[in-house]
Amino acid sequence: MIIVLKANATKKQVDHVVEKIKALGLKAMVSRGVERTIIGVIGPEDALRVQPLEVFPGVEKVLPVLKPYKLVSREFKPEGSVIDVGGVKIGGKGLVLMAGPCSVEGRQMLMTTAKAVKQAGAQVLRGGAFKPRTSPYSFQGLGEEGLKYLRDVGQATGMKVVTELMDVRHIALVEKYADIVQIGARNMQNFELLKEAGQSQKPVLLKRGLSATITEFLLAAEYIVSQGNFNVILCERGIRSFEEQTRFTLDLAAVPVIKKLSHLPIIVDPSHGTGLWDYVEPMAKAAVAAGADGLMIEVHPNPETALSDGPQSLLPERFAGLVREVRKVAKSVGRTL
Amino acid sequence: MIIVLKANATKKQVDHVVEKIKALGLKAMVSRGVERTIIGVIGPEDALRVQPLEVFPGVEKVLPVLKPYKLVSREFKPEGSVIDVGGVKIGGKGLVLMAGPCSVEGRQMLMTTAKAVKQAGAQVLRGGAFKPRTSPYSFQGLGEEGLKYLRDVGQATGMKVVTELMDVRHIALVEKYADIVQIGARNMQNFELLKEAGQSQKPVLLKRGLSATITEFLLAAEYIVSQGNFNVILCERGIRSFEEQTRFTLDLAAVPVIKKLSHLPIIVDPSHGTGLWDYVEPMAKAAVAAGADGLMIEVHPNPETALSDGPQSLLPERFAGLVREVRKVAKSVGRTL
Amino acid sequence: MIIVLKANATKKQVDHVVEKIKALGLKAMVSRGVERTIIGVIGPEDALRVQPLEVFPGVEKVLPVLKPYKLVSREFKPEGSVIDVGGVKIGGKGLVLMAGPCSVEGRQMLMTTAKAVKQAGAQVLRGGAFKPRTSPYSFQGLGEEGLKYLRDVGQATGMKVVTELMDVRHIALVEKYADIVQIGARNMQNFELLKEAGQSQKPVLLKRGLSATITEFLLAAEYIVSQGNFNVILCERGIRSFEEQTRFTLDLAAVPVIKKLSHLPIIVDPSHGTGLWDYVEPMAKAAVAAGADGLMIEVHPNPETALSDGPQSLLPERFAGLVREVRKVAKSVGRTL
Amino acid sequence: MIIVLKANATKKQVDHVVEKIKALGLKAMVSRGVERTIIGVIGPEDALRVQPLEVFPGVEKVLPVLKPYKLVSREFKPEGSVIDVGGVKIGGKGLVLMAGPCSVEGRQMLMTTAKAVKQAGAQVLRGGAFKPRTSPYSFQGLGEEGLKYLRDVGQATGMKVVTELMDVRHIALVEKYADIVQIGARNMQNFELLKEAGQSQKPVLLKRGLSATITEFLLAAEYIVSQGNFNVILCERGIRSFEEQTRFTLDLAAVPVIKKLSHLPIIVDPSHGTGLWDYVEPMAKAAVAAGADGLMIEVHPNPETALSDGPQSLLPERFAGLVREVRKVAKSVGRTL
Repeated sequence: MIIVLKANATKKQVDHVVEKIKALGLKAMVSRGVERTIIGVIGPEDALRVQPLEVFPGVEKVLPVLKPYKLVSREFKPEGSVIDVGGVKIGGKGLVLMAGPCSVEGRQMLMTTAKAVKQAGAQVLRGGAFKPRTSPYSFQGLGEEGLKYLRDVGQATGMKVVTELMDVRHIALVEKYADIVQIGARNMQNFELLKEAGQSQKPVLLKRGLSATITEFLLAAEYIVSQGNFNVILCERGIRSFEEQTRFTLDLAAVPVIKKLSHLPIIVDPSHGTGLWDYVEPMAKAAVAAGADGLMIEVHPNPETALSDGPQSLLPERFAGLVREVRKVAKSVGRTL
Repeated sequence: MIIVLKANATKKQVDHVVEKIKALGLKAMVSRGVERTIIGVIGPEDALRVQPLEVFPGVEKVLPVLKPYKLVSREFKPEGSVIDVGGVKIGGKGLVLMAGPCSVEGRQMLMTTAKAVKQAGAQVLRGGAFKPRTSPYSFQGLGEEGLKYLRDVGQATGMKVVTELMDVRHIALVEKYADIVQIGARNMQNFELLKEAGQSQKPVLLKRGLSATITEFLLAAEYIVSQGNFNVILCERGIRSFEEQTRFTLDLAAVPVIKKLSHLPIIVDPSHGTGLWDYVEPMAKAAVAAGADGLMIEVHPNPETALSDGPQSLLPERFAGLVREVRKVAKSVGRTL
Repeated sequence: MIIVLKANATKKQVDHVVEKIKALGLKAMVSRGVERTIIGVIGPEDALRVQPLEVFPGVEKVLPVLKPYKLVSREFKPEGSVIDVGGVKIGGKGLVLMAGPCSVEGRQMLMTTAKAVKQAGAQVLRGGAFKPRTSPYSFQGLGEEGLKYLRDVGQATGMKVVTELMDVRHIALVEKYADIVQIGARNMQNFELLKEAGQSQKPVLLKRGLSATITEFLLAAEYIVSQGNFNVILCERGIRSFEEQTRFTLDLAAVPVIKKLSHLPIIVDPSHGTGLWDYVEPMAKAAVAAGADGLMIEVHPNPETALSDGPQSLLPERFAGLVREVRKVAKSVGRTL
Repeated sequence: MIIVLKANATKKQVDHVVEKIKALGLKAMVSRGVERTIIGVIGPEDALRVQPLEVFPGVEKVLPVLKPYKLVSREFKPEGSVIDVGGVKIGGKGLVLMAGPCSVEGRQMLMTTAKAVKQAGAQVLRGGAFKPRTSPYSFQGLGEEGLKYLRDVGQATGMKVVTELMDVRHIALVEKYADIVQIGARNMQNFELLKEAGQSQKPVLLKRGLSATITEFLLAAEYIVSQGNFNVILCERGIRSFEEQTRFTLDLAAVPVIKKLSHLPIIVDPSHGTGLWDYVEPMAKAAVAAGADGLMIEVHPNPETALSDGPQSLLPERFAGLVREVRKVAKSVGRTL
């Protein structure tokens, strides 16, 4: 950690900061420059990170040197993690394909969709039983009934199942039916939920918050991992910007950035990331070309009647076409699908 | 609701949309313009709002005419709401002043702070017992012990108490000790928490999410109100933008916008909104000048040792100075403090 | 255009709006709904677009139906445009590769770079002679001397040359030496410059502004095209968001969005878009997978000594590796390089 | 400047960086910590700032210690600057009020508006003769004719005149008629225009760019000042965010931030900052409470017929009411109007 002092900081102020550093068992190196005095701190930075050094008299700014996350960082674990979900590997050479409806609306529509996406190449079935909806008047999901359909259809089709956990009280329920527990974008900083997920035996799919920086995203993953659950799959799903032609701005650069900073696998959700089915295929191809470990895509047998996210859902046949195209791109970057 | 069709939409496509509208018991008015056909829908728009009309063939875009929230809207209740918190009125001519430490760190520091802010003019004591922290390694709060200190100090000083609820399982606990239940910015779209708060007997202070639009903010309030709890106080606390000199960008225009759209009172938190104590006083004055119904401000007897948010906390004496200055501005805009 | 009236709009107010519409030679269709009256306007919308209808008494909002740009829209010209730059085709099946240093720093470094990037597959040499620098104390470019080097090196290597125009007074100068005139991101709404470029005989490369919506980007192109110059190449180069790990947020979804809305070709600049050479190759591959018509990439023979943008510049050999990888992706999406 | 090396940086890499620093005549202080080696640079930082140190092998990041602007900084000139525009002081205890139509549409409407705003208390008449319009099909301004009206009306009413300069070729023309030369938000990084303004004898009103950080804003001012023209007035006019209820997000915290960082006066434009006349008065009051040195407000005698920005223009009588209210707030914060 580097502490930059104000141009007019007094000797007494400098000494006060130095004492604080020493009191924490750290070493302070003071450099008096032409225009500024700076203090470098030697020793484990953690003790200092939580200190509000910015408020000490004479301090202009504090520059952290180390990253605030540890267990999820690539420095901690240089090789990439591969998460094994009952045989489906996420993070290796092969790409994972998660597909299904936004919401589970019924057993039949789920079965139809699952068969189609499985046939096209998906290994994981997605579907919401508890739905985070912006309006209280929108469809809120089928609840446990939806979870049952998911498990039944997953078993019938030989697919793993991922579904969202929205409520800490539902963790046992969701774990009972799902193979992967999803934490949605709006709950990325619901820290109680992260802690529960961290104590789960199930792998966790963590979606990036709408306005979360990559550092915050990795810190949210650190919450889960620090509780003992290392099986975290990250998911870029678009961030909020001023652009209105797409529902969100899909930040694909997050893929190589996270690959550099962390050992965790990262997949991309181009359905939420764009909000319109038209753009799902090009962005799915782009995600794979950027190095994503997989895709999560919304598919609905009849988007015209979908109870949520119809505009961004693909018809099953269009999804099959997407997989064919993505497969070519995957091959071109040395991945398999 | 207005449905705009593509330039090359066929008659069959237009008819298909019209049928859908009629099937929902609504009336469709088709206008064939020079360049576009548009369909206006007459009747209660709610049924149509949840339909994914954008995916119908030939549809270019769908323009909603009505606002998606109802109970919190000023159309529903033209006069401004005044929330009564055990005698403290929020939303009337008088401004409410909530102040206290970011986290409750101990009984003594809380008592010192409470006495000072009460003396300066604050009516409500703020303090976190459960803390939403970006890093799992940061201080997470004292939990129930902190709640007890809050209640005790509140009673000893004659102040009302506001504290954050982070976990649906803690609602009874927080209600037991607090006079106002706070929903933090990171939980603004934690819909399960909103529903619990909606069933509470206690007033709710709802903070705007970091990247929530005002519409989403009002919809989050609608979640609470639609469960029966009309005592919601909104709080603007800064949104995320590209600017880095301040921790967040305090969107003060949200105050007059919300005053126009909703009957709910709105206060401003310039401490989180700026992130630096230097900027708290000017922005507190600006908030009141813009029409805010009150302020929420972080005060700490010794920011150098604060376990959270030290840089943005005011010393008690500085807070007292702020109140004196804010009082002048309040008077200049016809409010009292 | 649709005009939505306030819930309490009076008949007189409605009539006043209708009269205005009629006075402009348009037809007004009034629909009185349960909760709102709306007025649909039939006829060429242009006359109305410039009217401040929002300020008419009783008007709640105005919803435009048509897009504000015309000549650059795909409705105006359904097939994609192919720009011919002295034999180099931009917008067809083949991808264009523009590469070179951020700034022209001297004849020798330019020649070395040009030979290397030409050898690797680039057809167009980029290099700045006039540099838009955030600080007045940064290197501002070699001016006409730089332009001469560009032309000489372009001719010697058989490459076309693209360079930035920053000043309306330099148009003749830049046209004299360059094959493509570039309008930089910070000048995307320098309307005088756009008009000059619109009267140029040379193709124009228009970079998206840091905070320009896609609609504003296409309107800036419309400025150029409406002056008679249809040879416009668009370039996505990253927009401003809250994320700090990358210099900008490369909005790759802009590629399919623009392909849908406009007939103009669009290329991507992953160097500025990410700001770090590490991320240039993955994002170059992603851009091509998303459907971009080409790439613009910064290459420098010795980034350690670059006078601008060193951190995001590739070494020539790394650029050659990038081209090999991008070529595979291009093939996988049916493009050639 | 602080250079942080990668965890695995070799001694050779460290030495290479140190040599570079020494070659520039600076002193390097190497601190080897537990987890990182860092190098502090002692000496004038300017020489190093332009070096792309991030690309040196082994370097993880570079942390600048000093601010990149000098002449506009408060360190350079601790007391606030007061700009004298022919007797109207900007930056002192008194507030400046600039008002008038968005565009000069004719002599009569300008005279009517000028008389009204002068009567209400404005000292400076604003009005655009050259208009930066997003669409090429919008009204582009009256040009020199508009400038003449401005000067004539300014002289007739005893007001100073501010108008926008959009084209470097017009500098002599604009200087001839205007008392203050305005650089608009979209041209804030039109560096050629900044340089011209820097050589002008007239004071310059510099508006913040839509997506400009405060640092970039001050660097743009530094462009002007470094050419010799110290008479720069800054203007916050709203930045781009995701919020759609207002045209821009007025960043009022920029006022105290800039007051801290710079000696230049700063005014606020709540008309562009909000985009709707409804919100102009509350935000004007908030701006003054936050410490702004003045306001710039759009007034139009008949917003229904305004050729630009009608929705955000105030009627003269409403402007007079605004001034009365703002005056009270000004008094409450120790300013006069």
